[in-house]
Amino acid sequence: MIEAGILGATGLVGQKIVKLLDGHPWFNVIAVAASERNVGRKYRDAVKYRVQGDVPSNVADQEIVDIEPKAMDKADVIFSALPAEIANRKEEDFAQAGKIVVSNASAHRMDPDVPLLNPEINSEHLALIDDQRRKRKWDGAIVTNPNCSTTILSLSLKPIYDKFGIVNVFVSTMQALSGAGFPGVASLDILDNTIPFIRGEEEKMEYETPKILGSVTKPADFKVSASCHRVPVVDGHMEAVFLETKQKARVDAVIQAMEDFSGEPQKLGLPSAPMKPIVVKRERDRPQTKLDRLEGRGMSVTVGRIRREGIHEGIKYIVLGHNIIRGAAGCSILNAELLKSKRYI
Amino acid sequence: MIEAGILGATGLVGQKIVKLLDGHPWFNVIAVAASERNVGRKYRDAVKYRVQGDVPSNVADQEIVDIEPKAMDKADVIFSALPAEIANRKEEDFAQAGKIVVSNASAHRMDPDVPLLNPEINSEHLALIDDQRRKRKWDGAIVTNPNCSTTILSLSLKPIYDKFGIVNVFVSTMQALSGAGFPGVASLDILDNTIPFIRGEEEKMEYETPKILGSVTKPADFKVSASCHRVPVVDGHMEAVFLETKQKARVDAVIQAMEDFSGEPQKLGLPSAPMKPIVVKRERDRPQTKLDRLEGRGMSVTVGRIRREGIHEGIKYIVLGHNIIRGAAGCSILNAELLKSKRYI
Amino acid sequence: MIEAGILGATGLVGQKIVKLLDGHPWFNVIAVAASERNVGRKYRDAVKYRVQGDVPSNVADQEIVDIEPKAMDKADVIFSALPAEIANRKEEDFAQAGKIVVSNASAHRMDPDVPLLNPEINSEHLALIDDQRRKRKWDGAIVTNPNCSTTILSLSLKPIYDKFGIVNVFVSTMQALSGAGFPGVASLDILDNTIPFIRGEEEKMEYETPKILGSVTKPADFKVSASCHRVPVVDGHMEAVFLETKQKARVDAVIQAMEDFSGEPQKLGLPSAPMKPIVVKRERDRPQTKLDRLEGRGMSVTVGRIRREGIHEGIKYIVLGHNIIRGAAGCSILNAELLKSKRYI
Amino acid sequence: MIEAGILGATGLVGQKIVKLLDGHPWFNVIAVAASERNVGRKYRDAVKYRVQGDVPSNVADQEIVDIEPKAMDKADVIFSALPAEIANRKEEDFAQAGKIVVSNASAHRMDPDVPLLNPEINSEHLALIDDQRRKRKWDGAIVTNPNCSTTILSLSLKPIYDKFGIVNVFVSTMQALSGAGFPGVASLDILDNTIPFIRGEEEKMEYETPKILGSVTKPADFKVSASCHRVPVVDGHMEAVFLETKQKARVDAVIQAMEDFSGEPQKLGLPSAPMKPIVVKRERDRPQTKLDRLEGRGMSVTVGRIRREGIHEGIKYIVLGHNIIRGAAGCSILNAELLKSKRYI
Repeated sequence: MIEAGILGATGLVGQKIVKLLDGHPWFNVIAVAASERNVGRKYRDAVKYRVQGDVPSNVADQEIVDIEPKAMDKADVIFSALPAEIANRKEEDFAQAGKIVVSNASAHRMDPDVPLLNPEINSEHLALIDDQRRKRKWDGAIVTNPNCSTTILSLSLKPIYDKFGIVNVFVSTMQALSGAGFPGVASLDILDNTIPFIRGEEEKMEYETPKILGSVTKPADFKVSASCHRVPVVDGHMEAVFLETKQKARVDAVIQAMEDFSGEPQKLGLPSAPMKPIVVKRERDRPQTKLDRLEGRGMSVTVGRIRREGIHEGIKYIVLGHNIIRGAAGCSILNAELLKSKRYI
Repeated sequence: MIEAGILGATGLVGQKIVKLLDGHPWFNVIAVAASERNVGRKYRDAVKYRVQGDVPSNVADQEIVDIEPKAMDKADVIFSALPAEIANRKEEDFAQAGKIVVSNASAHRMDPDVPLLNPEINSEHLALIDDQRRKRKWDGAIVTNPNCSTTILSLSLKPIYDKFGIVNVFVSTMQALSGAGFPGVASLDILDNTIPFIRGEEEKMEYETPKILGSVTKPADFKVSASCHRVPVVDGHMEAVFLETKQKARVDAVIQAMEDFSGEPQKLGLPSAPMKPIVVKRERDRPQTKLDRLEGRGMSVTVGRIRREGIHEGIKYIVLGHNIIRGAAGCSILNAELLKSKRYI
Repeated sequence: MIEAGILGATGLVGQKIVKLLDGHPWFNVIAVAASERNVGRKYRDAVKYRVQGDVPSNVADQEIVDIEPKAMDKADVIFSALPAEIANRKEEDFAQAGKIVVSNASAHRMDPDVPLLNPEINSEHLALIDDQRRKRKWDGAIVTNPNCSTTILSLSLKPIYDKFGIVNVFVSTMQALSGAGFPGVASLDILDNTIPFIRGEEEKMEYETPKILGSVTKPADFKVSASCHRVPVVDGHMEAVFLETKQKARVDAVIQAMEDFSGEPQKLGLPSAPMKPIVVKRERDRPQTKLDRLEGRGMSVTVGRIRREGIHEGIKYIVLGHNIIRGAAGCSILNAELLKSKRYI
Repeated sequence: MIEAGILGATGLVGQKIVKLLDGHPWFNVIAVAASERNVGRKYRDAVKYRVQGDVPSNVADQEIVDIEPKAMDKADVIFSALPAEIANRKEEDFAQAGKIVVSNASAHRMDPDVPLLNPEINSEHLALIDDQRRKRKWDGAIVTNPNCSTTILSLSLKPIYDKFGIVNVFVSTMQALSGAGFPGVASLDILDNTIPFIRGEEEKMEYETPKILGSVTKPADFKVSASCHRVPVVDGHMEAVFLETKQKARVDAVIQAMEDFSGEPQKLGLPSAPMKPIVVKRERDRPQTKLDRLEGRGMSVTVGRIRREGIHEGIKYIVLGHNIIRGAAGCSILNAELLKSKRYI
C-alpha cells in the first residue's frame, strides 16, 4: 500500500477524495491537512461532511495536520484539494520536499512544465515531469488535473479531434452547485434562478482544453469559446457543445468514434478507470443530470443528442459529467493511479 | 373599448392573457373559449389557476364557450392561445369569419403570408395582411407572435443586426418550466435535474428568427444554430448567445446600440410597450432569472455580460426574458395594440 | 429460488421492486404485469424508468403480461404495486387462484382478516392468514404493508409503545414527491412551494397506525392525529412527532429503547432487514432528508431531536424514512421474506 | 412626514423595510445604519440587494452611518433590523437618547416592560411604554414585533382564543429560506432537503405566543409546543396547527370567527393594515406557499383546511404568512404606524 496525504481534506473535493480512497486497493490515507484553525482537531469533528454516508472510519479519528511537508513526511503521494491562492506556494513546497503532488487546484495547471492530465487523453504528458524536475531542481513533482468543466468537455472532444480534427468549439455550460464548494452559493441566490457567471471558469475552459488535447510541447490548434452558468442542481455539469470539424463528420461516425474510445487507464486496468470513458445515449432527451451523472461510478461522461450543426456543417451535442468525481476527486485519483502504474510513485 | 375573445383561455398562456387584459385601457374580454369538456362551466371553476392573485372578476363568472366563430360573434379581436395542432384549422375558421386573430400558436407562424411579429422589430410586416386576405379570400386575418425563446433572442439581435450585420448565431438556452404549460414537466423529472431537449424548440428558433429580422419578402441572410434545455426555474428563459457580426462590433458600441434601441410600440406609446425593450445590466453576474425576469413589467428583455468572443472576433452575451409575458401573452397583446393603432382592428 | 410476479411493475414502486429484487438471494422475477395498453411490450420499452442506473437485465426484455392469475401461473409470490382502485378486485383474484399476494396497495389494509405488516413490529399478525383463508375460502392470501408515512411513523413508535405506553400522537409530515408516483406532482405546482394536502394520507396514518401496533385481534388503544404536507424533495418523508406517553419517558430512556430496538426480521436475518431498524442521530440538526434517507440501504428509519414536550410532559422528535424503499417496495419485499421464512411461501 | 432611521439596513429585513417605506405616506427614510465596514459607503454599493426591482432612489445614494444615536439625531423613529446580539445594547442606547425604537430583533421581546406587538391582537400593550420609561428612566421607548413564525401563528389564534378559549397548541412549521437572512442557508444544504432545526425558533414560538395573547400584565394561560423545520421555499412560512379549545369549537364557527376578525389597525385605517388580517381559503389544498404568501400585499395570513382534530375534540388547520413582510418588516412598519396614530411618535 502507498501512503497518501490529503491537503485541503475538509473541503468538498477533499471529502470526496477521502471517500473514494476508502477501501482503495493501492492508496491508504495516513494524513489529512487543512487550514490552521482546524489543526489538531479530529477529522470527524472538523469536517462539515456533505458526502452521503459516514466519514470513513480510518480517517475519522485522524488529527488534522498543518499543510507542511514535515507534517506528512511518511506520505508517498500528496493529493491537493487546496484553494488556488494557497495551492501555488504550498504545492511547490511539497514537490521541493520530494513529494509527488497530484493536484486538483488551478494554480499550476498552465505552467508549461506541469502536466495537465486527463488520463484517457494525454498520459504521454507525464514526460513533462523530467523537464519540471530539471528546471525546478526538485525530486518531487506536481501533476494537475483540469478544471471540472474542462475535464468533461475535453474527454468528449478527444475521439472527434483524433478522427476528424477540430476547427473551433462553442460551449455553453449548466453547472452544479457543488462546483462552488461549501458553503458556496446561497440558497436564496439560486432557488428558482440561473446565474450566468462563474468566476474564471470560461477562461479555464478556453485555455486548458487546447493544452490537454495538444502534444507535450504544443497546444492543439483550435479555439474554444465558453459561456458558463450555474443552475439549481446538486451535482453534474451539463454542456452544450457546437463544433466545427476539419473533415466533415457524419453523426454515426462520431457516435462510433466515441463508443470505440478508450485510453491508457483502460489499457492499464487502473482501479478507478471506467470501463467506457464516454457513454453515448440514444434517447432523444438524454443525458440528464440526475439520471446519468453517476454513469461509470461517476467516472464516465455521458454524451447525447449528437446531431448536425447547420452553420458550418459541424456537429452539436450534449455532454454531462460528475463535476466532483470525474471533474475533480476521481480524476486526481486516476492521475495518481497512472503515476504509480508508470512508476513515478 | 374593443371586445376581445380568448381561445384556449384556461391554459397557462390563456390565463396570463386574461390577467394582463384585466383593466386594459383598450380591450375588454367578453368571451373565453376552451376545450369541449369545459364548455358551459364558469371560467373560475374550469381553470386550474396558476397566476398569482385572484381570477379577474370580470371573467371569473363568464361561461366557457366553444372554439367556434359563432360563439364569439361580438368579439372584434380574437386572442389565440391554442395548442398548435388545434390552432391550425380553428384560427383559419375565425379569420374566414372576418375576425382578426392574434395568435401565440406556432401553426401559422411560418406561412409566407402571415406576419410573425415582434413589434419592436418588424411592425412593417403587417403589410402581409393584404397579401393574406387576397390569397385566402377572407376579411379577417391571422397575425402571430414568435416562439418564446425566439421572441427574446430576436429582440436582442435587432440593434446588432441593424448596426453591424450578423453572419451567424449560436444560442444555448436555459428555459423555465412554465414554457411547457400545465401540468407540463413532472416535478420528479426536473427537481435537481436539467433536461437537454424541448420538442421542436430548436427548429423554431432557427427558422423563425431570420423571418422576423428579414424584410417583408425575404428572411434575413444569417443562420441560427440552437441548443435548448429545460432547467428548474419557474419563469424566465435565459439564453447564451455567441455571434459573428459582419462588421467588427466593439463591446461598448453594442451596449450603446442596445440601450438606444426603441421601436414602433415605443413611438406609438402602446399601452403594453416597455419603456426600454432592452435593458442592459453592467453587473458581471446579471441578468439573473429570478431578479430580472419582471423587468419592464415582464415586457423588456435584459442583456448582460456583453463581451468579445475570440473565435470569429465576434460578440457573446446573455439575454433573459419572461417567457409567459414578453414571450407569449404580453407579446400577443402588444401585437393587438399595434393592430388597433394601425387601424386593422 | 422462488419465482415472483409483479403487478403494476411499470409504476414508481413497481420499478423499485424490480430493482431491489435484482440479485435477490431468494426471489427471481419471472413475470411483470401492467395496464392493458402495455401488455405485449418489452418491459424496457414500456417503463418510463426513473430509478438510477439501468433496467435490470433479467427483466428488461420480459414481455408485459395481463394482470390476471393465469398470466402468472408459475409465480409463487405476487408483489402488488397496483393503484388501490384496481388492487381491490385483482388481488382477490390472485389469492383465489392460490397465490400469496404481498401488496403495497391500500385496498385491503384495513380488512380485519388481512395482516397489515411492518415486520419489525407485528410479524405475529401473520396468524390472520388462517382466518382469512377460512373466511374467504381460498388457498392464497393477501398480506399488506402500510402506507409509506405510517410505516415510518409506526416503526419509531414501537419501542416507546412497548416501554412507556402511548396516550396519543400528533404528527405533521413533510413528504417527498416520489410518494405521489409518476408523473405525480407538476413541477410548476411544487417548485418554491409547499402543498398542505395529500388525499387520504391523514386518514391512513390515523387508522393504520393503531392496527399495526395492536394485537392480532384489537387495535392499540391510542389515537393519532395527522397533518400531511408535500414539500419539494425527491425522496424521503420527514415527520414531526409529538406524543403523550402513559408513563413518563425520559429522553435518554427513549433513545436507549430506540437504539436497542430490533425485531423478527433481524432475528431471522432476513436478507432485506436493516441491521438497525431505528438509527438515532445525536446531532441537533439531524435527521436530514437528503443526508439520511438511505440509512440502512433505505430500510432503516432515522430519528433525531428527541426532546421533552412540555404540554403533557411528553416527548417530541423527528423521524425520517425512505418512502419508496422502507415505505413501499422494500417493506413489501421484507414481508415476502418473512412469509418465506415462516413457510407461507 | 416623519423622519425615519433604519438600523441594520443592509440585511434582508432592513432591505425590505427600505422597500416598503418607499412612497410611504407617513415615513421618510433619512438615515441608514449598518456594520462598521460599510459605514461611509453609499447604500446602493454596500447592499447585496435581494428584493425584486431597484433600490429605492431616495435611499440608494445615502451614505451608511454608524449604529449610534448621534448619527441619526434627526430621526423621529428608528427601525431596528439588527441581529439580536447587537440589538440588545444598541436599541437601549437609542431609547436612552430619546428615540422610539421599533424593533424586529428578539433581544428585548420578552422584557416585561417592552411591548411585543402584533397590532391586530394586542395594541393595548402599548401601555407598557409608560412603565418602561419610568423604570428605565428614558424618554424614548423600545417596541418589538414577534418572531416571524409567532406573528403568523398568533394572528390565526386570536379569534379562536377570544371566542372559544385555548387549552394548548401543537404547531409544526415549514419555514422559508429568507427567514435565515442572507447568505443564510447554503444551497447544497437545502436543495432536495428538509432541515428539522432552526436555532431558538421553537423557544420563541413557545414563549412569545402567550405574551402576545395575554393581558398587559399576564401571559395567556395556554401552552405552545413547537417543532420547526426549514424547507426549500424562498418566502412564506407554513404552519400546521393542532389545538385543544376550552369550549368545543365547530369548524364553521371557527371559519366565521376568523373571517369576522379585525383589529385596531383596520379600525384606525393604518396605511399598511391589510383589509382582512386573516383570509380563509375553502379549497381543500390551500393555502399554498407560492400562491398565497402575498395575500393582502403580504400582510394577511391565509388559513385553510380547518377541520376537526379527533384526539381532544379540537381543531386543526394550516396557516401561512409572508415571513419577511407580515413576519418582520411589514409588522415593524405597522407597529410604527400604530405608534404614530396613538401619538407616541
